[in-house]
Amino acid sequence: MNKTNNTETITRRKLLVNAGKAALGTAGIITLAAALPGFPSKAEATGGSTEKWPWPYVKLDPDKTAELAYQEWYRVFCGAAVINSVFSQLREKVGEPYKSFPSDSFVFLEGGMAGWGTVCGSNAGANIVSNVIIGPRIAGPDCEHGHTIGSEMMQWYSETALPVFTPKEPKQKTAIVQTTSESPLCHVSVGKWMKKSGYALASPERKDRCARVAASVAYKLVQDLNAWKDGKYVTKADWMPGKDVGITAQQNCNECHGTKVPAPPSAKK
Amino acid sequence: MNKTNNTETITRRKLLVNAGKAALGTAGIITLAAALPGFPSKAEATGGSTEKWPWPYVKLDPDKTAELAYQEWYRVFCGAAVINSVFSQLREKVGEPYKSFPSDSFVFLEGGMAGWGTVCGSNAGANIVSNVIIGPRIAGPDCEHGHTIGSEMMQWYSETALPVFTPKEPKQKTAIVQTTSESPLCHVSVGKWMKKSGYALASPERKDRCARVAASVAYKLVQDLNAWKDGKYVTKADWMPGKDVGITAQQNCNECHGTKVPAPPSAKK
Repeated sequence: MNKTNNTETITRRKLLVNAGKAALGTAGIITLAAALPGFPSKAEATGGSTEKWPWPYVKLDPDKTAELAYQEWYRVFCGAAVINSVFSQLREKVGEPYKSFPSDSFVFLEGGMAGWGTVCGSNAGANIVSNVIIGPRIAGPDCEHGHTIGSEMMQWYSETALPVFTPKEPKQKTAIVQTTSESPLCHVSVGKWMKKSGYALASPERKDRCARVAASVAYKLVQDLNAWKDGKYVTKADWMPGKDVGITAQQNCNECHGTKVPAPPSAKK
Repeated sequence: MNKTNNTETITRRKLLVNAGKAALGTAGIITLAAALPGFPSKAEATGGSTEKWPWPYVKLDPDKTAELAYQEWYRVFCGAAVINSVFSQLREKVGEPYKSFPSDSFVFLEGGMAGWGTVCGSNAGANIVSNVIIGPRIAGPDCEHGHTIGSEMMQWYSETALPVFTPKEPKQKTAIVQTTSESPLCHVSVGKWMKKSGYALASPERKDRCARVAASVAYKLVQDLNAWKDGKYVTKADWMPGKDVGITAQQNCNECHGTKVPAPPSAKK
């Protein structure tokens, strides 16, 4: 890929294919952000904090975790639901340091951060869990998968028809339409679902869709954490925005810069 | 404002003016997300976690905090720099529960979350600090300003020519161009700055710009926390996306949906 080309002409598939080649061309697995020209990987975690990584982790059941996330969504919404679905179990099975982590403070991740439609809270919650347990990439090679599990989640979230998890006792009995967001952002993800389903933001169906998305993310998160615990996690994350397009970005420039951006939706009640 | 109108025709200023009227029309100050139709405010924080709010807070010096954030950016980048600029001081002045909070885990907020260009890590870090200290909005009226300080930060960040803070001993001696992002997103904020300044993502100037933005956010964050501690905080946040435009969103639909979206920039090294 010619890095000086205007990215307007680069398709998403080309970007992904080339990013994959680049990843395979270096060391099979790489820490993505380490490749960002703006973010060197050699900083040392020697600040005033007392944290050490990894935090003790015991393998969890993905189904049980997803059910917990689904239920928790109706109490604390997407981001805190994903966090609590994992940490509530680890508080019981492990105790500290999970007991001291203020999971409910992360209610603000709802609606893409206080309703602003930025990153989906389920993605943010998953990144918090993986990085709190495994550690930040600057803490050394043993901690790199905190970062890669989080980045892979955003890629999977963008490319998967969601939700994929159906709870045993759903609060909405009607079928929930699946949509592929092509973005880690709440606004884009919810907007595409609202458009295809015809349901408004305030509808019980939209709420149940988001609860199931949080559950779907929690399910995959625990799958990846379990694989990491077994030493078998190999990241599928292959998006290196700094290196590939010279700016922090999601994986498909034309999704927002091209002609596919719709007119903003009418407000629905 | 006719809520059924297509928002394509609603200007940002109109949105803000009407949102302000709506806020003043109810109770002077309202918890913004409580107005989101998808996010009821009556849920109870009764989950498995042990947290209680507010966490003990002592007033901090905005200048000192901003200097700390600036220095910390070069170790842990934007999000964790904002968190550590406040929590490192509170670890010394207060102790627990700040000592147990894993601040450095939040390195992943860099580059809009692992480089994906979503919410600026400085905004995310500020929201984490205000909501961890004051608590989530679902915990009751005493905790509402965790949410509103975070939301106000995103509004201020979007509307202010940043950076506003200049460190005493800047690593880059050249003047740093100020830009107004009109968005809480990293991609948009960094992109507009790169375009106006002419500097690439990997440049020392871009890094110093982001370090100063983190410092600017930390400065305002402590100003607001100090006012809250004195019982004098009145939020300037007036953006209610669920109520005003029927979808989680930033405050200016046409910024992304209109004709102002530029061609994606060429990659620069």
